[in-house]
Amino acid sequence: MASKLKIGVIRVVTTDDWDFLRTHARIISEYVRDPKLQMVTDRIDGFPSGIPNEEEEARAIPYVIETANRMVKNEDLNALFVSCAADPGVSELQEKLEIPVVGAGRTSAYVARSLGFPIGILGIDEKVPGVVADALGRTTWSYLKPEDVETTLDINKSLNKYIDLARKLVDDNHARVILLACTGLSTARLAPRIRNELHIPVVDPVISSGLVTYYAARGNQIQNGE
Amino acid sequence: MASKLKIGVIRVVTTDDWDFLRTHARIISEYVRDPKLQMVTDRIDGFPSGIPNEEEEARAIPYVIETANRMVKNEDLNALFVSCAADPGVSELQEKLEIPVVGAGRTSAYVARSLGFPIGILGIDEKVPGVVADALGRTTWSYLKPEDVETTLDINKSLNKYIDLARKLVDDNHARVILLACTGLSTARLAPRIRNELHIPVVDPVISSGLVTYYAARGNQIQNGE
Repeated sequence: MASKLKIGVIRVVTTDDWDFLRTHARIISEYVRDPKLQMVTDRIDGFPSGIPNEEEEARAIPYVIETANRMVKNEDLNALFVSCAADPGVSELQEKLEIPVVGAGRTSAYVARSLGFPIGILGIDEKVPGVVADALGRTTWSYLKPEDVETTLDINKSLNKYIDLARKLVDDNHARVILLACTGLSTARLAPRIRNELHIPVVDPVISSGLVTYYAARGNQIQNGE
Repeated sequence: MASKLKIGVIRVVTTDDWDFLRTHARIISEYVRDPKLQMVTDRIDGFPSGIPNEEEEARAIPYVIETANRMVKNEDLNALFVSCAADPGVSELQEKLEIPVVGAGRTSAYVARSLGFPIGILGIDEKVPGVVADALGRTTWSYLKPEDVETTLDINKSLNKYIDLARKLVDDNHARVILLACTGLSTARLAPRIRNELHIPVVDPVISSGLVTYYAARGNQIQNGE
């Protein structure tokens, strides 16, 4: 009966800094606190600056699928988490794999919708990832990004600008929920800083989607008779 | 720094059987395992058979708001969970209250959308709760219920029929995710039984939305400087 619960985490920034790559698994663990939970992290090749825009999203899909297939082959996973707000490869993997697959983009957008509207969104690209816009549907939302941020590598120097833009979304666009539409903003731990300034729910893409992945993994575990 | 994390749970079945009423808080606790988490349960008046249909949904709204106001006044809550798939009063409370408010209907529908489609839905009314249909939007879904179930009180005698209908949703409607659109189906612990039979993700409305409520409550706690 003593059984593991294993989630695979796919990072979309190519680096050999495994401590950096494992940050997403670590911040999910802080919320889950299940001693049975193991998270294994892997990453795609060929994207040293992450996935900053739509062209790169499309180019990343085969790399995500390749990494997913390798993880599923080598690890007895209960669920797979694609830790990118653009959800590259998620639809394809949901069709192909037998385990639940969760993407940080659409899932965190749905969590934001659960908490209210209008939704104010912060990210890194000129526009919101397509899967996030799709998930928000007809819900009222607005989007801002700092002018000098172009990739996930630019985030840390612009944290105060993100807080100013969050304030603008609340004051000018009447946002009642803030959604972070880039998982690099999770690594930067931006959500608690905005909450402390603005006293408003802030949806962190890695933590919120990570909890849904944990839910799906436990369901899959029960399904396997454990 | 030792701080509580308190979630209020509103039940929509009027009974004085508090062990029954607290079942929803208990099954959320099984997934959250946070020693700081406290859940307090209260219930609405005047609905001994729960909320079986649209007419009763509308009639329940002022009762849910009254219960919510009483809980917020008496307890220092970090979030409020309305444990009913029809989300009675949830939109109204999200506008009025300063703490996050989560409803089991739209939130579990969003979790189902996160896990894939087509979605097969089981419930108790002739049709899917309006908030669930709204949350599913253009996503492909189908809905079934056992003929002899009319209220939450009829569920336990029909568990095998629910499993047969879930199989029908998979075989005939190609469902790849099953969503339970009545929180009475959570009390009956139907989700693991369907998973064990059909090896498919099954979204339990109380557990999935309860995890989102926990996420929102912890965000609200951090916002309060803890």
